[in-house]
Amino acid sequence: MSILCVGSMAFDSVETPFGRVDKALGGSANFFSIAASYFSKINLVGVVGEDYPIDALEFLTSRGVDLGGLQIIKGSDTFIWKGKYGYDLNEAQTLTTCLNVFEHFEPELPEGFRSSQFVFLANIDPDLQKHVLGQVDSPKLVACDTMNFWINRKLDGLKETLKLVDILLLNESEARQLSGEYNLVRAARAIRQMGPDVVVIKRGEYGSLLFDEGQIFSIPAMLLEEVFDPTGAGDSFAGGFIGYLAESKNIDHDSLRMAVVYGTVMASFSVEDFSFNRMKNLSREEIESRVEAFLSLTDIK
Amino acid sequence: MSILCVGSMAFDSVETPFGRVDKALGGSANFFSIAASYFSKINLVGVVGEDYPIDALEFLTSRGVDLGGLQIIKGSDTFIWKGKYGYDLNEAQTLTTCLNVFEHFEPELPEGFRSSQFVFLANIDPDLQKHVLGQVDSPKLVACDTMNFWINRKLDGLKETLKLVDILLLNESEARQLSGEYNLVRAARAIRQMGPDVVVIKRGEYGSLLFDEGQIFSIPAMLLEEVFDPTGAGDSFAGGFIGYLAESKNIDHDSLRMAVVYGTVMASFSVEDFSFNRMKNLSREEIESRVEAFLSLTDIK
Repeated sequence: MSILCVGSMAFDSVETPFGRVDKALGGSANFFSIAASYFSKINLVGVVGEDYPIDALEFLTSRGVDLGGLQIIKGSDTFIWKGKYGYDLNEAQTLTTCLNVFEHFEPELPEGFRSSQFVFLANIDPDLQKHVLGQVDSPKLVACDTMNFWINRKLDGLKETLKLVDILLLNESEARQLSGEYNLVRAARAIRQMGPDVVVIKRGEYGSLLFDEGQIFSIPAMLLEEVFDPTGAGDSFAGGFIGYLAESKNIDHDSLRMAVVYGTVMASFSVEDFSFNRMKNLSREEIESRVEAFLSLTDIK
Repeated sequence: MSILCVGSMAFDSVETPFGRVDKALGGSANFFSIAASYFSKINLVGVVGEDYPIDALEFLTSRGVDLGGLQIIKGSDTFIWKGKYGYDLNEAQTLTTCLNVFEHFEPELPEGFRSSQFVFLANIDPDLQKHVLGQVDSPKLVACDTMNFWINRKLDGLKETLKLVDILLLNESEARQLSGEYNLVRAARAIRQMGPDVVVIKRGEYGSLLFDEGQIFSIPAMLLEEVFDPTGAGDSFAGGFIGYLAESKNIDHDSLRMAVVYGTVMASFSVEDFSFNRMKNLSREEIESRVEAFLSLTDIK
């Protein structure tokens, strides 16, 4: 079952206490697609400039990502993000954002993408998220991410999009900001009233919370001895999470909980290196082996 | 099996975003003893001034706490702590500390306390911790807490005490400070080399980590809709944790994991009201029922 993903393709320049990298491949659509590609075929909708390397596109194709919805804009440059992290890797400081090709991005779905059953609207302008969703015939499951920038600047548009969304993934501070509630139980309740049946609150190295009808699920993150760069961890989480749901063709309580585990595991790979380097050549066995390690880490008896 | 506990008895004045309280009963020995009293008899070693209310002592006795090791100093005042929390309840800001009777405290164990099998050295001067431990005949298990103040000012004394300790409980920033390692896996490894076989790292609302030979265990905290005052949460955690171990008379991997759950549950009660009010009249059924709720919250499938 294919997952339609719309999001950013970017060059990231990142500095962490453990090193730095310039113009590494990044963007939410990249991290999501690569993480999810271990579970499902992906239909990618996005935009790059003509400076985007061909071999990076070939790599996506080799991972089963259909680039039929990718616009390559001649004479323009790819989206650029520059950011920095201190030891508290949960908080990125954005240094520069150059929208470039993203400024006039109008996502259009190829005919073959319109029947996608699973949809992931990565963190882009909520009006664009809605515009994409309007082109999908009858999706079985729509998941969405967002960020403080859109909560501040496009709250009405975001609320319109959220009415059409089944699962919202966002981080702790965004959940507080969107709901106006500090306590996360109350925040999730308020957000569920905006539309999404399921709310996943990501807490970085502290794990994540899943709220759906009648249940709450809480798990820690994978405990790692080396955390290199948290950029893309949230989108890799989403990739493992939605990927697992698409693969299992099930969205009941138990599947949602296990999907959070797969999200956690994909995020844990993602942070072990710059860009999505660590996720490029995983085997399904490596993923399952880390799932087992995570279950041992958290197993009560 | 009795647990010997040495620690502070205090008046706490606390301000949180949800209210304030003046001169409430507090101190590590109080929180620990009350939490642990649901699992075991307690032998308390501590000191109060003559301003300490008799009915608060009678309450401890009614909970099975033996006050044979409590010194009541005539003409002196009880230890006072004043602190404040913002919305981030993980970080207390100390406004005032008046040591009073604590300044010249020399803990002496009554004869009947010397055969205690379980010992909890709450957060006091590491030299006093060692002095108390020297008076116990042959303890089966010695657990210890500490804080940044002692790591800064009495590191050598603390390291001497740690050589005699089986389990060290401390919070995330203290673990980093004591070990000089930012990563918690490495921090715990370094601390285990100082003496304690088992290291428990408390992360407040984010849960806790347990490190012992060959295993790591990670669990989130109980998710609460109302968190009122985190003062004493760490000592209540220790009370549930050591109390469960003393009751189960077992310190294998599985018991240690379940002890973390009981610690988590007792801490969750503690934060629901000022002082130890919420822990005063629990039933064992209420505790077991919250253990069940916690297992549901974290159960993967």
